[in-house]
Amino acid sequence: MKKIIAAFFEAFLTKNLSSHQKRIMKAIIINIGDEILIGQIVNTNAAWMAGELNVYGIDVLSMITVSDEKEAIVNAVESAICDADLVLMTGGLGPTKDDITKKTLCDLFGDELEFHQESFDNIARILLQFGREPDDRYRIQAMMPKNAQILINKMGTAPGMWFEKEGKIVVSMPGVPKEMMYLMSKKVLPILQSRNIIQEIVHITFICYGKGETDLSEMLESFELSLPPYIKLAYLPNTGNGYIRLRLSGRGNDRKELEDELKLKSEELKLQLGNLIFGMNEESLENALSKILLEKNLSLSIAESCTGGKIAHKITSIAGCSKYFMGSVVAYSNELKIDLLGVNPETIQKFGAVSEETVIEMAIGAKKRFKTDYVISTSGIAGPDGGTEAKPVGTIWIAIAHPDGVLSKKLKLGNLRERNIEMTSNIAINTLRLLLLNELKEDLKPTY
Amino acid sequence: MKKIIAAFFEAFLTKNLSSHQKRIMKAIIINIGDEILIGQIVNTNAAWMAGELNVYGIDVLSMITVSDEKEAIVNAVESAICDADLVLMTGGLGPTKDDITKKTLCDLFGDELEFHQESFDNIARILLQFGREPDDRYRIQAMMPKNAQILINKMGTAPGMWFEKEGKIVVSMPGVPKEMMYLMSKKVLPILQSRNIIQEIVHITFICYGKGETDLSEMLESFELSLPPYIKLAYLPNTGNGYIRLRLSGRGNDRKELEDELKLKSEELKLQLGNLIFGMNEESLENALSKILLEKNLSLSIAESCTGGKIAHKITSIAGCSKYFMGSVVAYSNELKIDLLGVNPETIQKFGAVSEETVIEMAIGAKKRFKTDYVISTSGIAGPDGGTEAKPVGTIWIAIAHPDGVLSKKLKLGNLRERNIEMTSNIAINTLRLLLLNELKEDLKPTY
Repeated sequence: MKKIIAAFFEAFLTKNLSSHQKRIMKAIIINIGDEILIGQIVNTNAAWMAGELNVYGIDVLSMITVSDEKEAIVNAVESAICDADLVLMTGGLGPTKDDITKKTLCDLFGDELEFHQESFDNIARILLQFGREPDDRYRIQAMMPKNAQILINKMGTAPGMWFEKEGKIVVSMPGVPKEMMYLMSKKVLPILQSRNIIQEIVHITFICYGKGETDLSEMLESFELSLPPYIKLAYLPNTGNGYIRLRLSGRGNDRKELEDELKLKSEELKLQLGNLIFGMNEESLENALSKILLEKNLSLSIAESCTGGKIAHKITSIAGCSKYFMGSVVAYSNELKIDLLGVNPETIQKFGAVSEETVIEMAIGAKKRFKTDYVISTSGIAGPDGGTEAKPVGTIWIAIAHPDGVLSKKLKLGNLRERNIEMTSNIAINTLRLLLLNELKEDLKPTY
Repeated sequence: MKKIIAAFFEAFLTKNLSSHQKRIMKAIIINIGDEILIGQIVNTNAAWMAGELNVYGIDVLSMITVSDEKEAIVNAVESAICDADLVLMTGGLGPTKDDITKKTLCDLFGDELEFHQESFDNIARILLQFGREPDDRYRIQAMMPKNAQILINKMGTAPGMWFEKEGKIVVSMPGVPKEMMYLMSKKVLPILQSRNIIQEIVHITFICYGKGETDLSEMLESFELSLPPYIKLAYLPNTGNGYIRLRLSGRGNDRKELEDELKLKSEELKLQLGNLIFGMNEESLENALSKILLEKNLSLSIAESCTGGKIAHKITSIAGCSKYFMGSVVAYSNELKIDLLGVNPETIQKFGAVSEETVIEMAIGAKKRFKTDYVISTSGIAGPDGGTEAKPVGTIWIAIAHPDGVLSKKLKLGNLRERNIEMTSNIAINTLRLLLLNELKEDLKPTY
């Protein structure tokens, strides 16, 4: 087997990476996992990895998914290092699967395992987060190939392994998406870049809320046309929460120059989109709101009906929220709306629990009770049942009590319960964010 | 090239499908598409196809994604028909890509193209739906391999093609998911089944909570040993909520017989695990709790501190919850714990907000206020900051007020905020579920 690989290396020696010339690298992605092969999970790793490689100017020749078996792994890797410069593997590294991939790669590269203290320390550190200590099994997991570069994985117990021989690179990573993403972003791509074998790349990612992709692309049409060929604007896929992520990427040989140019373009982009942009990278709306509340030293409470605690959950998912968040009432029953929030029984009787009048009284009642500067309240028909002709499923009212009064808004959503709850929560949080930024002008109102 | 394939066929002749014996078919999935290789779209086709094949008892050996180029397609198909009985291909059949895959497969199978009236009629029918008529370009699209079986595609203009030679089957389908799904469900799988070459398969999936995979596998050791070779028990991956899904799968020739036998084995499994099993298929703990509350006509309210609304959100994610769920207070501040839940200020001062005493008073206070049969309350340090030596991050108390008193429980979790909130919510809901089932025996207590 080693002989075959040596032959492959030989054949590629003429155009290997040590030539220091920047050329298009060719990569093959190998995902190991029976759970993918039985259709239990969708292979999102391959798409994410390919997207990143694409941004770095590395071509992906093929993606292959194989089972957790030695023969399948060997065949895939042997064939891949024949065709590509860079082979990126995920999976086959769990505590039970540990041996297969690691040993297979050791055989393939003529390497052997030895105890790796740094890997063991990392395992111990991670177990500690769960209140556990590493036993002997973990000493086995910390056995690593002697000659490979070990890529310590802050997100999990299995490190990445970087094998290299005569210009061919094989990197093995865990299959858990967040661990793979960490290793790719923080280790693999930076190493490739530091060796100056791929071009410099600079990204700036903005997150927007309140308009769809089509609207945004219309708003940005002339901006996109103004970009030089080495700067690209990409719309990253929506993850189901209505956020739209826009990524500006520049490629070139001079990092400083690129960064300066991207900064200028970012300013133009911000001018175009204004407060449709709420943050950078992985930020959430509740994160953006949290920053404003802290900065302005304001307090918040919530009175939820149809969102059933989802807004409170989002707000309290931010560490340190106790500085501005007092609490929430999930007043699902009319009794609670009356008893805890002081809604007038006649209001409910006359206009219904799902009405502008009720949602406003909920906000006012919570403001009195909780003594906070701001209150978000919601009341609606989340579905799938409970609608009438006058108030179909998806009819939802939100209100925001502020120091000078109450603002209210009617939403007409669909009939998917989970989606209605998620959308209402995001729209409510975003509406308060815009209000606090004095930006609740008509053209910036979420258009739902 | 044809010679190589002939040799492959030769090698497989001994165990080919014409022997009419039901054996495990082996399949390879090939997805053609540059948009997958640059990470623009996630390859959901492969997962869906693999899931269907799995249900029909066909093993997927590997999945490979290659580019829209002749050489890449030829290599992938040649290699696949060497290893598998059935090669399922998607993509490379669009109006612009049409020629590549079709011509490549014609070459590979020594076939040639001829005009295919039925395909042309189908194209005409589909164009008519958009108010258009087929022009000459569509006569080219309707050129089909002479010896292949053409699978008319009601969902689009490109039909599927079924090539077969000496027991090896290669099926080419369009890459548009709904078209591929139509051809798979309505043509490919029924043809395979009608030929009686694939086995019947029956699945039963249970979901458990309260013990880890290792504990469950120990409990089920003798059960697993008792299974006949055609019935398998699989542990499906945890999706981050601590649920463990167990799938019993049986394969055989007689569906009725299989179903009966699986039912018996399911009963044995249920006996072994008792109320560690909370549901079937995709059910959630809140779903299981909902059923019990409805059945027993009981009401519930919640008083959350550290879980910040997550429990209320879970409960209200179930449609129809308003029949038993009154509401929740998220009492993040001490003021709210005192004001809304009637916690004694001295209790908080003496024992702290995170204490058995406080969480019990929260539950009792909520029970009085909400007048419900049951209350769940939580108070803890979700992290990542706010811990002390005596009460480190991850110290969380839950209490359940019931008609006869209050039950309380201390959890020692880790320092990951999101995870602590999720785990506490699930443990609390599960504890109430077990209490309602009169099953809160020591050995069934969640062991965290």
